[in-house]
Amino acid sequence: MIFNPVEFLRIRRFNLREHTDEELEEFLQLYLRNEIPDYQMAAWLMAVCCQGLSKRETATLTRCMVESGEQLIWNTPTSYRVDKHSTGGVGDKISIVLAPLVATLGLQVPMMAGRGLGHTGGTIDKLESIPGFRTDWSVAEFQTICQETGSIINTTGPSLCPADARLYALRDVTGTVWSIPLITGSIMSKKIAERPDSLVLDVKYGCGAFSPSREAAQELAESLVATGEANGLTPTTAFLTRMEQPIGWAVGNFLEVQECTQLLKGWENDKDFHKSRDLIDLIVHQAGQMLQHQDPTKSLADCVQKAYTQLKSGAAYAKWVEMVKAQGGDAEAAVDNCDTFMETHATNTKTFELKARKAGFVSDINAMTIGLVAVDLGAGRKQAGTSVDPWAGMSFSVKVGDHVEEGDVLVKVFHDKSLDDTAATECYERIYKAFDFSSEPLPPLPPIITHIITKDGGCQEMDMTPCS
Amino acid sequence: MIFNPVEFLRIRRFNLREHTDEELEEFLQLYLRNEIPDYQMAAWLMAVCCQGLSKRETATLTRCMVESGEQLIWNTPTSYRVDKHSTGGVGDKISIVLAPLVATLGLQVPMMAGRGLGHTGGTIDKLESIPGFRTDWSVAEFQTICQETGSIINTTGPSLCPADARLYALRDVTGTVWSIPLITGSIMSKKIAERPDSLVLDVKYGCGAFSPSREAAQELAESLVATGEANGLTPTTAFLTRMEQPIGWAVGNFLEVQECTQLLKGWENDKDFHKSRDLIDLIVHQAGQMLQHQDPTKSLADCVQKAYTQLKSGAAYAKWVEMVKAQGGDAEAAVDNCDTFMETHATNTKTFELKARKAGFVSDINAMTIGLVAVDLGAGRKQAGTSVDPWAGMSFSVKVGDHVEEGDVLVKVFHDKSLDDTAATECYERIYKAFDFSSEPLPPLPPIITHIITKDGGCQEMDMTPCS
Repeated sequence: MIFNPVEFLRIRRFNLREHTDEELEEFLQLYLRNEIPDYQMAAWLMAVCCQGLSKRETATLTRCMVESGEQLIWNTPTSYRVDKHSTGGVGDKISIVLAPLVATLGLQVPMMAGRGLGHTGGTIDKLESIPGFRTDWSVAEFQTICQETGSIINTTGPSLCPADARLYALRDVTGTVWSIPLITGSIMSKKIAERPDSLVLDVKYGCGAFSPSREAAQELAESLVATGEANGLTPTTAFLTRMEQPIGWAVGNFLEVQECTQLLKGWENDKDFHKSRDLIDLIVHQAGQMLQHQDPTKSLADCVQKAYTQLKSGAAYAKWVEMVKAQGGDAEAAVDNCDTFMETHATNTKTFELKARKAGFVSDINAMTIGLVAVDLGAGRKQAGTSVDPWAGMSFSVKVGDHVEEGDVLVKVFHDKSLDDTAATECYERIYKAFDFSSEPLPPLPPIITHIITKDGGCQEMDMTPCS
Repeated sequence: MIFNPVEFLRIRRFNLREHTDEELEEFLQLYLRNEIPDYQMAAWLMAVCCQGLSKRETATLTRCMVESGEQLIWNTPTSYRVDKHSTGGVGDKISIVLAPLVATLGLQVPMMAGRGLGHTGGTIDKLESIPGFRTDWSVAEFQTICQETGSIINTTGPSLCPADARLYALRDVTGTVWSIPLITGSIMSKKIAERPDSLVLDVKYGCGAFSPSREAAQELAESLVATGEANGLTPTTAFLTRMEQPIGWAVGNFLEVQECTQLLKGWENDKDFHKSRDLIDLIVHQAGQMLQHQDPTKSLADCVQKAYTQLKSGAAYAKWVEMVKAQGGDAEAAVDNCDTFMETHATNTKTFELKARKAGFVSDINAMTIGLVAVDLGAGRKQAGTSVDPWAGMSFSVKVGDHVEEGDVLVKVFHDKSLDDTAATECYERIYKAFDFSSEPLPPLPPIITHIITKDGGCQEMDMTPCS
């Protein structure tokens, strides 16, 4: 076959037909060998954005990306390994609790995560707020720690899917980030290269997610599931989850570690954990789904309840401490004394209590606004490669549905003292505007997980397990 | 304004809104200063292919391309200058006759033309088959020759619309050639930079044209007319013309010069020029349209008849000889002795007479097939920058509708002797397959010009003037 890149581009531009597997392989290989220039790849990425790719083409593209780099080989075949991916949210700290929790339930969790960009935070940034915590382990070290500790959360590293790194950098500067086939390739190639036994996806939709509409989230989730299954990652299943108010009570790197640590210590009275209830629901359903992947004879509801009971018992806390130590983190200082660690270490951080200006019921806390303000406070990044402030963020005293009196604290804001007063005041006002109030009590919120997507079952409405 | 190219790309990729004039200017200027890389321009070109541009955006893009280079200033304001553009056909030699003809009718014709690519021939290639004929005059020389002779046909040269040259080169390698806004910018920028008083467009459709469908041709023609009018080239008008069988009897570079020279010498009996009738119709309607542009008080039909009478009289022949001499061509050898010149000079050319294998009426001569075979015979080029054989081509003895007996010559084929017998025989067979025959006489062909498009009148069916 003499590969003609211009004809390849015309085929996609006019949707003349699907690309063959051989054409996709050749195009990507030539690009990685610098025999196809960036401008032809950029034109193809834009054509894919506008015209799409079929499920088969998406799966093949993903496989080619996997084959561009190293793939993990696990030499303990009796262990069952699971991973998860979230499309990103505000206050989305699920992985930090999920990994040690699931490890205590007998599964291995070799997790590769990312840094925050834009309005969403990143698991790696959050973990790196723990002094000493390393997330740049080599593939061999990653596997050793996972097999010894049961869980690890690391960055992907340059040896896995180098095609993804190159394509993502080009997409980032050509307006071609948002494309379901290209997002699918980017997410799934790294998960497939890691070679877990199964995968759970948390695809978020709503004002604080990358996809505002449920329909677009469903389309993405179906593409992710189909691509995982087509590449031997079976089962791959996805939850569609609502992302409207920030998840839990903490937004910001160490603040979120603090919320996770509190949860992992367990609790007696569910009421005390009211502000983390949405977070808990997300964690235990993803953990339950992982357990059911390992043993499909069990019901999802039973698995979810098992995860809930385990989390509430505090049994995962020791695993969390072990995991932090295994990854080089100072568990004594930052985990065991989590509640006071920030007070003693964040000496250059200013706090501000934002108070309700009238009584009422909180009817909305716009997660997108909160996410964007968090970036401006220093908790996130506008450009890849810049650093984040571990202490900046927000600690919410209320959740949607709560009643407040005039003068009640809504949220405590943390930022570096170097932020000037005008900029700080502007941030506080934007946070206040993210709140809406109602004079009447609100009906109960709909469940946070709305749909489950599986290869065989398609997209089904979720009947969430009420745990206690 | 801080220009953000990624946001600019996202706007087009999602059709969020139209680009402003300022954004388009900035994007193109940054690209020409190499501050926007090829990969961002390539992504934008593909987004434009898929999502389109509005009429205003297309006109602004075209203006920016014009302003990227030199624009002609004409210091003889009393002269009326006209130009034409054809979207390309097979046997499309109209310009060669049109330019001297219109010059004898008192207009100036500063014409910039192109080389052939793909299945269509190019006016420049045809003229360069005349020994010594130069088409690379500087802008100053171009203007001087035009003002002294009344007509000139030249290449565009590097000083006009350098943006077009750069964009075209990128489009050529990124599968983004076919896009009505981008084609409009490429065609119209050069015509506008040339600053004639008016413009006539010949937009072809059918099997031998770039646009098979009438609807697509109409859309392109409307875009061309709107863009010319929006940029002060008034009037710009377009004919939609059928491109089914090759135009006239000659396909190939010098063969077409020969057909043009015969026409320019004039004729007594219309029947003798039966095989050039479609060509004559196209020439005199475009010439008539130019005359009417100069004097809108006259009817198009009267102007067309005037052009026909002038052409038939042979009065334009002397102007043709003058124009060839002015451009450095050997008029004595190649024009005055046109009918014998090829015999004496094409000494390395082999001829083959393809004959009818049964009696019947010619019902089709597929122009696309003929155009592609002409390229394989050496008359055209597959890649820009390569040379063409001036003698290669085909001389047709019949037109659609003609009756032939078994053994009658259909077409005489010319090609270099270096073409091996197998390849040559394959070409002859492909030519034969371009013909279709019917046992019954055919109804008269529909007129070759089907629609006329003007700014004020929109697209109207054409009532062709029957000339004699």
